Amino acid sequence: MSGVATRIRTPTTSALHDIQSPVRERLEDVVVEMRRIVSADLPMIEQVSGHLLQMRGKMFRPTLALLASETDGTPDPRVVTLASVVELMHLASLVHDDSVDHSALRRGLPTVNSLFSHQVSVIMGDFLYSRALEALVALADLDLLRVLTGVSSQLTIGEMRQLAAVEHLAFTEVEYESLIEAKTASLLSAACETGAMCGAMRHRTALKRFGARLGMAFQVADDILDYVETASVTGKPTGLDLREHKVTLPLIAAVPKLSPAARSRVDALFATEEPSDEQIHEVIGLVTEAGGIDAARRRGEQYALEADAALRGLPDTPARAALADAILYVMDRRS
Amino acid sequence: MSGVATRIRTPTTSALHDIQSPVRERLEDVVVEMRRIVSADLPMIEQVSGHLLQMRGKMFRPTLALLASETDGTPDPRVVTLASVVELMHLASLVHDDSVDHSALRRGLPTVNSLFSHQVSVIMGDFLYSRALEALVALADLDLLRVLTGVSSQLTIGEMRQLAAVEHLAFTEVEYESLIEAKTASLLSAACETGAMCGAMRHRTALKRFGARLGMAFQVADDILDYVETASVTGKPTGLDLREHKVTLPLIAAVPKLSPAARSRVDALFATEEPSDEQIHEVIGLVTEAGGIDAARRRGEQYALEADAALRGLPDTPARAALADAILYVMDRRS
Repeated sequence: MSGVATRIRTPTTSALHDIQSPVRERLEDVVVEMRRIVSADLPMIEQVSGHLLQMRGKMFRPTLALLASETDGTPDPRVVTLASVVELMHLASLVHDDSVDHSALRRGLPTVNSLFSHQVSVIMGDFLYSRALEALVALADLDLLRVLTGVSSQLTIGEMRQLAAVEHLAFTEVEYESLIEAKTASLLSAACETGAMCGAMRHRTALKRFGARLGMAFQVADDILDYVETASVTGKPTGLDLREHKVTLPLIAAVPKLSPAARSRVDALFATEEPSDEQIHEVIGLVTEAGGIDAARRRGEQYALEADAALRGLPDTPARAALADAILYVMDRRS
Repeated sequence: MSGVATRIRTPTTSALHDIQSPVRERLEDVVVEMRRIVSADLPMIEQVSGHLLQMRGKMFRPTLALLASETDGTPDPRVVTLASVVELMHLASLVHDDSVDHSALRRGLPTVNSLFSHQVSVIMGDFLYSRALEALVALADLDLLRVLTGVSSQLTIGEMRQLAAVEHLAFTEVEYESLIEAKTASLLSAACETGAMCGAMRHRTALKRFGARLGMAFQVADDILDYVETASVTGKPTGLDLREHKVTLPLIAAVPKLSPAARSRVDALFATEEPSDEQIHEVIGLVTEAGGIDAARRRGEQYALEADAALRGLPDTPARAALADAILYVMDRRS
């Protein structure tokens, strides 16, 4: 525990590439499997899913599932399909999120809604999700189905909570935790839990908890990044959440500490439909001065420590070490 | 066979109320079960799902599932949950369809996208579908899961094909059949098949075929209605498909028979972004004169005969009689 706390505070970074090394080969199988699952005899689907697989990103969730399945040294080959299903569920939810948010870019590439249309993105999200479930049903494991259909309800509840977190300065830390648990931690937790169910069943509960805590740390880090990083690093404008009036942990932690004058500046931003860059820059400064970023960092570190603690009872395998490194990766990532 | 052909051509109508009488009590259980499945501790979800259950309409798909389960006289109590899942999948797809089409009304009530927002309708569709699947997984029957996750991919493929059927006068009858099979017949077929799997397993194949043929007849009748009914009866403007440049069977059947002059009027409508009522009225007249409506009616009757034939091997139960009446209902309905 104190080990990870020290490591988190040192500038050591953990590259995703290294974390993935114990499962590199299987990760390539996952890409092939994802293509198989979404293939369809319809040109439009081929075109859209080709675009989606191209922008598939870092494959963080399949990496977690594959690593979890290896923590006991005896991975079950079904994990390749399982990991593909987890990533496709993630992709499906991104496609719908982008459509709901009218986002134009994702991971530096145009979103489905901007490149094709709103119609296509609603339908493609449904298609990816349906196909993922068909592939999951083919594994003939009701326990896997229980976990992942449960998560999928959680993801949609998270989206509903997200709508409630917009334009709502009274949003509390408890509400924020419920939100990020549903929208982010639930799927990372399920990736680890279902990965464990494919080869490391006796560590299922520990890995479920690990994933849940990692997911909380992941989202807190993401929300901090939105306040501290510049556009060239994140590939998205700094302060996007403020621009969209989304209330996240740095702001929630800062609000009670703001002077009346500072608070009125924050209120003014929330009352402006399209805040200017200057307004956003000013509020980022006020949130930082009031200790909002530091408070959020401390919360994230707490989650990271809890994730590390969850790994304690696991055997000393390369997969376990990679999962521990994944905590550092989540805390240190710059995009 | 000739029996149904005669009946179809006579003005006998079959009220949905009568068809539902063998399963009336169970149908009330389905309404309660649907509420249970979608309940959530989130005000927005309660509000939207309350609205959806209020506009739930005719419960035709659950009726089919319940009747199918009774055709052998020994319905399995699981059919109540199964029928609820089928209707929730249908509702989820309607919510997304309305969002994709920007429809304002459905069954005479405002759609989710018009009453709440586009965002809420995308998320609510996902929520209804996820919850339906969770309830289905709880039945712990992989065969039911196989059938219904397969259908859900079909529904999304149907929506994709629907996009391709817009602005496309060269759309063929074969393409039209693939479209309505995916978007309509697949779920009616699955309602009957999975209903059979809850109490009438030996008739599974026959009832699957019955549902598929009934579904084709249902959609053809729907597409004819769009050409022949007035707004006061359908609750939607006559000629809505033409207005939206959707190519359906009456037009497909008429196109090869049109005079060059008539064809140029049709082309003109498709070249007009917002056709006038006069244009639509004129093209409906041209399609009718060219025999498009009659040809579509003949195709629908053919499907109805095939549905009737599929019931041949079933025991003589009230449920079987009600399913036969469902064919008449589909052919004769006015809304």
